[in-house]
Amino acid sequence: MTKVIVIGGVAGGATFASQLRRLDSECEITLFEKDRDVTFANCGLPYYLGNIIEKRSELLHFTPEQFKEKKDVTAKVFHEVIHVEPNHQTVTVKDLKNNTTFTEDYDYLVMSPGCRANRLPLDSDMIFTLRNLEDTDAIESYIEENNVQKALIVGAGYISLEVLENFYNRGIQTTLIHRSEAINKLMDQDMNQVIFDTMDEQNIDYRLNEEVESVDGKTVHFKSGKAEDFDIIIEGIGIKPNTEFLEDAGIEEDDAGYIPVNEFFQTNYRNVYAIGDIASYRYRHVDLPTHVPLAWGAHRAASIVAEHITQTRNIPFKGFLAANAVKFFDYTLASVGVTPADLKHFDYTMVESKQMNHAGYFPGAEPLHLRVYFEKSTRKIIRAAAVGKAGADKRIDILSLAMQNDMTVDELTEFETAYAPPYSSPKDIINMIGYKAQEK
Amino acid sequence: MTKVIVIGGVAGGATFASQLRRLDSECEITLFEKDRDVTFANCGLPYYLGNIIEKRSELLHFTPEQFKEKKDVTAKVFHEVIHVEPNHQTVTVKDLKNNTTFTEDYDYLVMSPGCRANRLPLDSDMIFTLRNLEDTDAIESYIEENNVQKALIVGAGYISLEVLENFYNRGIQTTLIHRSEAINKLMDQDMNQVIFDTMDEQNIDYRLNEEVESVDGKTVHFKSGKAEDFDIIIEGIGIKPNTEFLEDAGIEEDDAGYIPVNEFFQTNYRNVYAIGDIASYRYRHVDLPTHVPLAWGAHRAASIVAEHITQTRNIPFKGFLAANAVKFFDYTLASVGVTPADLKHFDYTMVESKQMNHAGYFPGAEPLHLRVYFEKSTRKIIRAAAVGKAGADKRIDILSLAMQNDMTVDELTEFETAYAPPYSSPKDIINMIGYKAQEK
Repeated sequence: MTKVIVIGGVAGGATFASQLRRLDSECEITLFEKDRDVTFANCGLPYYLGNIIEKRSELLHFTPEQFKEKKDVTAKVFHEVIHVEPNHQTVTVKDLKNNTTFTEDYDYLVMSPGCRANRLPLDSDMIFTLRNLEDTDAIESYIEENNVQKALIVGAGYISLEVLENFYNRGIQTTLIHRSEAINKLMDQDMNQVIFDTMDEQNIDYRLNEEVESVDGKTVHFKSGKAEDFDIIIEGIGIKPNTEFLEDAGIEEDDAGYIPVNEFFQTNYRNVYAIGDIASYRYRHVDLPTHVPLAWGAHRAASIVAEHITQTRNIPFKGFLAANAVKFFDYTLASVGVTPADLKHFDYTMVESKQMNHAGYFPGAEPLHLRVYFEKSTRKIIRAAAVGKAGADKRIDILSLAMQNDMTVDELTEFETAYAPPYSSPKDIINMIGYKAQEK
Repeated sequence: MTKVIVIGGVAGGATFASQLRRLDSECEITLFEKDRDVTFANCGLPYYLGNIIEKRSELLHFTPEQFKEKKDVTAKVFHEVIHVEPNHQTVTVKDLKNNTTFTEDYDYLVMSPGCRANRLPLDSDMIFTLRNLEDTDAIESYIEENNVQKALIVGAGYISLEVLENFYNRGIQTTLIHRSEAINKLMDQDMNQVIFDTMDEQNIDYRLNEEVESVDGKTVHFKSGKAEDFDIIIEGIGIKPNTEFLEDAGIEEDDAGYIPVNEFFQTNYRNVYAIGDIASYRYRHVDLPTHVPLAWGAHRAASIVAEHITQTRNIPFKGFLAANAVKFFDYTLASVGVTPADLKHFDYTMVESKQMNHAGYFPGAEPLHLRVYFEKSTRKIIRAAAVGKAGADKRIDILSLAMQNDMTVDELTEFETAYAPPYSSPKDIINMIGYKAQEK
């Protein structure tokens, strides 16, 4: 019987295990997860802290027992894979509860251990990161038990922004600091202005070019020389791949510890796959490397690998467009394509439009700002970014599909929107981008 | 100096005149409109009657005086073009106020007279249709002056549905009748169930397979034998093109009075163009004729013709995808591609998905029903339809762009959505359609 071992039980690993079982009712699937839970919805965690998602059960699809019962997947939690021998097709697993070690062999190994949060070199019981349900429970308990009134958020990526909003929603007074001025880095920096405006409107304190120097009890000493008391600190200062266990395994990694894979997510060992946040891949639409540690890619990879192992079909992955969206209070900030930092590799032009998300005379119309970058020589779209209260996600999804099809910016004039006054305009903002680009 | 005559002052004609002026500051543009107004937003008219759009001024972009002042377009209202002599390049115009007739010559003629409402052969002062701002004003005055409490809507196309909702919103008790069971014909009939369910919930009376036999004062006698009093009747029983003035002009028409045009909207006379609702065209994605009397096409044609006449650029029109959307109370019903009636020309398969419009655990998730039709041999998408409370318009817009790019249904697995819990799922409903189709 085919034996498949899966490392990691969240978006990539658990989804892969479910997909594989759907395609192959026979094979033996064993999943090792070093932490407490499998199959939780990690994108929902900040909203549980904000009481926006009220039931914790909404976040957890399966316990290990349910995973066995519903999908015949043997999920072993608190089991950390500490070594892989690809030439012998074995993994060494540490049972963290019993402090024992054992070896298992596999026909196929699918690795999706994810990334972990970077940590500041600070020693304090009130500092947390938010990567999984255990973290969430720990934060929730700490808030309840310590009557948390004042929170410090360190870092300004999308998880920090979501935590900020959710802490605000539950009445915690929140301060955000960031070590530079460049927040929410997938977005054009000037389009992040709505984030600062919103924080100003809500009287949320934020400080740029600021860092934590030390923590003494509740007192936080900042690089700027300020000192202030907080009840909790949430760190969101970047991630690194959980690939240390592959040291000496002979599986190729890049300098940052990410694992390059081919179009079927195979590593340099053909029966060893890497999916989810640890995989290093390329953009779909341009010839540049990228990491996209987001849920869509983990799910897509899970399907492709399950199909590939079972030889149900052989559909290669064509690369990432890096579509992403974050909600911040009433705003949506979304983008797709190369990052602002990667634009330097191109000779490009930018065209933008600001108009209402639907017919201006229809109630509820809100301003929408859409920006599209295209390569001068080919006129192919390489990046798009949108900010607005409604309709931003829709336009980025449309432009994601445009980039999937290698469209030129001019062809956006031909996009036929399903128009009625509540939805768009007879010349949608997507069309306007095309018309404006034609004049460049 | 180049003389351009435009027939019709709404979406097609007025937009064309504005676009032409933008590209050519010199030419002489004269627009003849047989009715009272130009440049009004006809898609907003039902919402003005429902007091959803409160200011009438929101609906009217320009008076003729403003059109002259802002765009240097001479717009003559109550001026009906009654004859065209393409060989002499002249139009005969009737001044309806002064009952005089005159002839004007042109270098280019752009015809966008639109369609008019079909009428029942009934003689009553309380029967109205809703095609323009004059109709809207007449209905509004009649409602106010006659203390209208009870309305009968005849017909169940999208304008009838919009009028029904808006009358309901202003507290008018409304009954809808339709001569068959097939309502809102661009939508799959079973997907229209939400319309009936909503009317049931709101206690709105509707009767299928019913027609008006006669009207006697306020009493309406129905084909079924019933009789009932109403204060107003709104007819929405189809449209026909306003092309009678072309009789003997030598400009080709099809049997229904629509005007076939080429990819630049030229008629059989190369300096005579037909745009908007009167043009007969072909689908973009399949080889079948269609009429699409909707705003997007009128605006797109206006741009293409303005570019063509000025030779700014020569971008041919590649055909309609017929994307459309209608709001009915909390629901959106949207579709794109061939009509349900046109499906008979294809050997097709249908795949559908019902799932939440975004992550189910995030508040506000609503069921969404998406259906995609594809041709068996090519697997190209030929039609899609969506119904839901939110997100239906977004998915149809995405599928419109998919059809613009001749995508196969299988390629929908690769659509990279900008995912966060408020917007979609890691496997968006678009992806699910692709995955399900792969198994067919």
